[in-house]
Amino acid sequence: MPKIVDHEKRKEMIAEATWQVILKQGMKGATVRNIAKEAQLSLGALRHYFSTQEELYMFAMNLVKERVLKRIEKIVASDLPPKEKFISFLEQLLPMDEESRADMEVWLHFTNYFLGNEELLDDGIREGIENALCFLDCHQLLKDNIDIEIETERLYALVDGLALHRIMDKNRPTNEMMHQVLTKHVETLFK
Amino acid sequence: MPKIVDHEKRKEMIAEATWQVILKQGMKGATVRNIAKEAQLSLGALRHYFSTQEELYMFAMNLVKERVLKRIEKIVASDLPPKEKFISFLEQLLPMDEESRADMEVWLHFTNYFLGNEELLDDGIREGIENALCFLDCHQLLKDNIDIEIETERLYALVDGLALHRIMDKNRPTNEMMHQVLTKHVETLFK
Repeated sequence: MPKIVDHEKRKEMIAEATWQVILKQGMKGATVRNIAKEAQLSLGALRHYFSTQEELYMFAMNLVKERVLKRIEKIVASDLPPKEKFISFLEQLLPMDEESRADMEVWLHFTNYFLGNEELLDDGIREGIENALCFLDCHQLLKDNIDIEIETERLYALVDGLALHRIMDKNRPTNEMMHQVLTKHVETLFK
Repeated sequence: MPKIVDHEKRKEMIAEATWQVILKQGMKGATVRNIAKEAQLSLGALRHYFSTQEELYMFAMNLVKERVLKRIEKIVASDLPPKEKFISFLEQLLPMDEESRADMEVWLHFTNYFLGNEELLDDGIREGIENALCFLDCHQLLKDNIDIEIETERLYALVDGLALHRIMDKNRPTNEMMHQVLTKHVETLFK
């Protein structure tokens, strides 16, 4: 079914054009017109793929999520020891290279745009961290009497706070500092 | 010098109108025209106080900082024991009531708007946390061999991550959960 593949590919290409426009001009520049121009499509052609701006935005947001998820799957499938794997998983949620920085900057713009729409803004990170902590706890790798609910909120806030700070100031915290902070934190959780 | 007082008061009133417009319509609605309307001033009168939109934005941002600082000063001057005072100081940086929620929501909009302008976005919170940790460490209240630099980044990220999450979803983390997370974190730092 080559036509369907093309259709999906074209949609992804439009989503990537959307990210580019957002990175260059912020949400206020991310009009259907500007996105069509960036994607080198006519307005009519773009409307063929996405009938509304909201629909396009949601598709573009989802694609950011999928990219992050793919990076995480690679780490989960690796044969790192549990503590290192956990730290490495958390590092996938931080803007440590150009690709992930762009992802997270776009995400922050979307967050601002969709403020108040809790369901749409759920990036699945809290759940991912909670699942990981539960898994480690089940395997008796974490300290006794750990409160998974509190530790999930704490680690989730820590990770997003680091990401936010690095997006606000591209020089700090450095990758090395973010790694040290995560390592320190994870060490206080592990036995 | 009643004239100067009036001038400053009027500027503050305009800054407050700016917040209101941002809260209602986001940065894209925060035009000089809309702000003048909200402040019930003519465009000419508004221009008398702020010649450019940037100048107005910066004044409004600064006023948010000052409001937070005033809340912190009250806590510092209180006679709470050190650990409770420290937790209470950190809680001033979280959107736990309507006033602080509005402050932080406005701040997040400004952050997005001024992304890339590191100096402008420095809210002084990192420095405040670092100073507090140094003070506590000097008074031998923190665990031995604590790394102030790492702990500053860690706590700064934790606080801003909690604030970001609560602004993204006004139902969670709850005040009670944020209090528990901070208490847990601070307890791991204290002797």
